[in-house]
Formats: sequence, structure tokens, C-alpha cells
Amino acid sequence: MSDQTLEIMTATHHKTKPDPETLEFGKTFTDHMFIMDYTNENGWHSPRIIPYQPLTLDPAAMIYHYGQTVFEGLKAYRTDDDRVLLFRPEQNFKRLNLSSDRLSIPDIDTDIVLDYLNELVKLDKEWIPTYEGTSLYIRPFIIATEPNLSVAPSASYKFMIILSPVGSYYKEGIAPVGIYVEDEYTRAALGGTGMAKTAGNYSAAYKAQDKATAHGQAQVLWLDSSEKKYIEEVGSMNVFFKIDGEIVTPALSGSILEGITRKSIIELLKSWDLPVSERKISIDEVLLAIQENRLEEAFGTGTAAVISPIGELSWKGEQSLINNRETGPLAARLYETLTGIQKGRIEDSLNWTYEVK
Amino acid sequence: MSDQTLEIMTATHHKTKPDPETLEFGKTFTDHMFIMDYTNENGWHSPRIIPYQPLTLDPAAMIYHYGQTVFEGLKAYRTDDDRVLLFRPEQNFKRLNLSSDRLSIPDIDTDIVLDYLNELVKLDKEWIPTYEGTSLYIRPFIIATEPNLSVAPSASYKFMIILSPVGSYYKEGIAPVGIYVEDEYTRAALGGTGMAKTAGNYSAAYKAQDKATAHGQAQVLWLDSSEKKYIEEVGSMNVFFKIDGEIVTPALSGSILEGITRKSIIELLKSWDLPVSERKISIDEVLLAIQENRLEEAFGTGTAAVISPIGELSWKGEQSLINNRETGPLAARLYETLTGIQKGRIEDSLNWTYEVK
Repeated sequence: MSDQTLEIMTATHHKTKPDPETLEFGKTFTDHMFIMDYTNENGWHSPRIIPYQPLTLDPAAMIYHYGQTVFEGLKAYRTDDDRVLLFRPEQNFKRLNLSSDRLSIPDIDTDIVLDYLNELVKLDKEWIPTYEGTSLYIRPFIIATEPNLSVAPSASYKFMIILSPVGSYYKEGIAPVGIYVEDEYTRAALGGTGMAKTAGNYSAAYKAQDKATAHGQAQVLWLDSSEKKYIEEVGSMNVFFKIDGEIVTPALSGSILEGITRKSIIELLKSWDLPVSERKISIDEVLLAIQENRLEEAFGTGTAAVISPIGELSWKGEQSLINNRETGPLAARLYETLTGIQKGRIEDSLNWTYEVK
Repeated sequence: MSDQTLEIMTATHHKTKPDPETLEFGKTFTDHMFIMDYTNENGWHSPRIIPYQPLTLDPAAMIYHYGQTVFEGLKAYRTDDDRVLLFRPEQNFKRLNLSSDRLSIPDIDTDIVLDYLNELVKLDKEWIPTYEGTSLYIRPFIIATEPNLSVAPSASYKFMIILSPVGSYYKEGIAPVGIYVEDEYTRAALGGTGMAKTAGNYSAAYKAQDKATAHGQAQVLWLDSSEKKYIEEVGSMNVFFKIDGEIVTPALSGSILEGITRKSIIELLKSWDLPVSERKISIDEVLLAIQENRLEEAFGTGTAAVISPIGELSWKGEQSLINNRETGPLAARLYETLTGIQKGRIEDSLNWTYEVK
């Protein structure tokens, strides 16, 4: 048996599945997980699906000290005719390799890993909730495991995939949120790790999220680290504005994560012949557009919420309403189209879905 | 028994101690480790010293996904009369709390934790190597352990201390190294996590270190993220320059780690009545000083090397020698004084050492 052949050890005990009506995000995990190992001598090897179980590592494992790790997030959906669809999974594994390059982590073979994911999701298919708006969240991640306190890339890694059934992001229908424009904390700088999906970017944002919450807003709007002038992301989502008919999202600068929902929206808008621009957009431009009633809509985009309309913006103590705190027609159309494709209800003319077989 | 009483479970098996002549950094660990737990309900509790052993965590533990973690590094030294000294350990625990604040991690009681460290080092005292230049490296760290994929602070943590006997940083005497001035990658930005000792800052630097190595230099000289003009750190050390008699180190800006060796050097220089400034210093100022023969010395400072003289600077393809690639008298005096105090050979007039009893 080759070192690359997937080994499957099924769980003898099956956990109770959670109530789909009260599902939370990321707290329940399925019966199985995928794991494979990397060493400098043998590369990635020993791919296996095993019962979901704790991980045992030396306390000196590099993940605990120097943060050498990357991750991805995507979802599996059950269609009305009981097929299982993933949304552009090859894009996630491609981005995982981009993140790994930034963090000096060895890359994976994206085709082979997609096959492994296929087997894992198939095995835990019954865990995919069918209730409206629910899905199975998929979390692939790589961690550095060498027990060594030297500040240098690890000689060993683990790549894992865990699965979590998740509830609807919008329990009471899609609803616009308020955002707080952050001008003290920085999410990412040019030359930093902002374009990589790596752990350190996320916990570094908690202090800013606390400030947003204290100001009564749901999310942080991040500005560029250098001038605190140009818009980068909202929370951990990409962001779009519709101004005078033009749909604008910040251009990828090196400090912005290249979201797969972002990319899909740009492609959809182009297919609809709507004007979409990736360019620098300043907070001043947005504020002026609000003042002059030219800002039609604003929304965040990401895997978790798909589309998250922005209804209010708080900046230097002043609150401005956007689209009267209502979901705009563009946000609604994008949400319906993307979730429709993901659930297999709308024709997938752009060939985005991957059917688990 | 109170939940705060230290429990000690000694190891029944004692590992073989490594040869002090061939000791590497951070690869060997002692017989015991310290661990305590935090929950939102009970705060920090159950402090215990147990045999050094692997850590078992859920694969969804937040440390693996969002990098919520902080650490410290300090050393224990055996004196010639067999006492055990720590160097300003209260400073490390104070800084750990500063780092924790930035990462939304609950703080620790620094006095109590220093008592726990005292007991751990006492128990593993025989692991402190006595060979010239060797010491016992101490790594306290905190990791987020809640199994939850939500992007939010963890509800549970582990604080741990592991110990590693380490060899002399300078096996063949203190030797100046070359540094590569990095103008693409960023270590930290204003509003980021540069002032915190947190995992993500370290692996984010590996790509730049690769570039320095490819250019034949030992370390990276980091410039500010915004203008790529002002000097911040060298590798994972603070940096000092002696120009025209003035000893300059970059002022703490929020993106620079407040090194305890840095702080001690500033205090020592003041006690010696030497002119020392914490101020902005640009790469242009350093290059001009080299050109005009006014740059007398440059050196990095940190726990691992104590003092690391800089003998060469590489910037935009040009190499400049500093002090003819020799260790300058100031670097030598600081190294002798600091290591002398640490080893109990020089009178500790500034009251920096802590004796393990």
C-alpha cells in the first residue's frame, strides 16, 4: 500500500446529531476527521480518515509558539434532491497554498486533497443539515508540529479537515448590521500576512471588535494600516459599495484576503453586465457619497454569511444610515443567486459547484 | 485544598541530560513542566507541576485556528557557588500581561506565577547546565483551548511553563553578524501586534529571513511598515547604534517589542553616565553615519544572544562594514556586564537578579 493511499477507519460510536433549529456556529463536530502528516524526509504522507478525536502534541510544538499555521473555510450543502454540493472547493485549496507560501509551509496537492475531502464529506453526509439556511462547515487547516523553540520553519506538519454542521446565519431573514470604522487598530499591513488565511490575523482583531461592540456596532470596518484612509475589509469579510450605479470593492493590495465569495460576486456582476470595479476606495469617498445620497448599498461578503448588508456606519462619533437600514436589491439578488447555486436550486451556469460522489 | 495551591507530581522516570558541549537551542526539555487552567467561571485554577508530557486538545481548539496565544522567554543561570539566578523574571510576567491584553487573554497574577516558576526551576535544578555560556531557557506561554470555530476570544486557556537547557549562543566567542535591510516584508504595523510577544509575529517573519539568508546575511533589519524608513528591530531582537558617541535605540512606537535586555541596557548606560536616546532613527541616518565614519558600533539585544554585534549591513544591493566587522568596546562591555550579573560574578547593584530558593 502506497503512503498516499487514503486509509479509512470508521467510528464505531456515532454521536447524536444536534437539533438543526438551534444549531450554533462551529461548536459541534461530526463523527470523522481527515488527517495527514508532513516531514521534510517524506513529504505529505499517511492520509487517513479517523474517528473525530483529540490531538496530542508536544508542548514545544511550534504551533503553540510561533503561529506557523494556515486554514480554510467552505461549506457543503444538501440539495432538495439529496445531492451534496461544495462551492468552488478547488479555490479554497488553491488559496490554502498561497497562504502556506506566505507562512513558509509546504504546499499540498490540491486535486488529491479534494478527493480526500470528497470521501470525508461522503462518510459524514448524514451530518449535513437540510433545514433552510443550514450547511456543513468544512475547516481544513495545517499546523506546525515540530517540538523546537528555534524561530524557524517547522520540519513537520499536520494537515487536518474537521466538519461542523452550522445553523443559518440569518435566523430571522437577512438583516443589515452597523459597522464601526476603526482608526486605531490595524488588521494587516503591506508586507504582512493580510492576504493569507492564518491564525494570527484573527485574534489580533479581537480588541477592535470589542471597540465596535462598545460603540453599539456589529462589525469593524478596517482601514489601511499606513494612512488609515482606504477601506480594506469589514470584520473578517470583504466589502462592496454601490455608488452612483458603480459597484466597488477594494482592490487586492497584499493586505486584503482574496475572498472566494468576493471573487464569485465580481464574476456574477460581470456576467450580469453590471459595472464592477476593484479599486482603492477611501472612507472619505464613502462618507461623501452617503452625504450626497449617492451610496445606494453596502455589504460584506464571506463564506459564513454569504452577503451581510451594512445598514449603518459609525465614524468619529457620527452615525450615518445606509439605504435606510434596509437590504438593497443588489444584496438581495446576490444572496438569492449565490445561495441558490450553492443549494442546487439555480442553474450553475458558471460551473462553480462540485458534487460529492 | 484551595484551587490555587500548587500541586506537585514528580516524575518517576528521569530523562538523560544532554551533553552540555553540544547543546542546541530549544530541542531538549527537562523532567517537569508547569500547567494551570483558566475558565470564565473559575478564573485561573489548578496550578500543578507534572512530568513533562504531551498536551491533548480538541482539533477545534482555538489556538489552532485564530492564534490567540502569548509567550515569554527568560533564562535561569547556575552561579559558580551553585546558586540559581533568574534575570528580572517579574519583568517577563509583567510583559506577558501586556501581550495578553493585546490578544484579549485574561491576565495572570505575576507574583503567584513567579512563585510557581521558582518551584519548577528548583525541582529541575540539576538540568541547568554549568558549562560556560550555557543556561536553562524558560518558556512560559498561554494558549486558547476552547473547541469553537467562532472568531471570538476563547472561554478557556492553559498557561504552561516548559524548560530547556540551552548551549552557548557564541560557541567560538562573540562574533558580529551581517544584516539585510528588508524593504518588502513587514514585521508589524502601528495598531497591530508588534508590541506583544505573540506567535503570529514570528512565523510571519520567516519569508524575510529566507531573503536575508539568500543575500548571505544572518538577520533581517526591519523598517517601519508605513514608510519603510525608520528602523524597528533586527531579527527578533531590539537594536542599538552608537553614532558620534550617542547611543540610539528606536523609541517604542507600538510596533516594537519592549525587550527586557533593551530596557536593562538603557538603565545600565544611564548608570554609566553614557548618553543614550530612545528616538526615531532612519536607515538613511545610519547609512550616512557609516559613510562619514561616524557609526562606531551597532548591535542587537535579546534574551537568547544578550548582545549580538552587527558587522555588516546590506541595503539595496550595497554592503557596508560596521566597525570593520569587529565587536566594539561598548558591545563587549555590555555583554560582560550583563552576563556577569546573570551568572552572579558581578555585583548586582541594580537589583536585577532573583535567586531561586
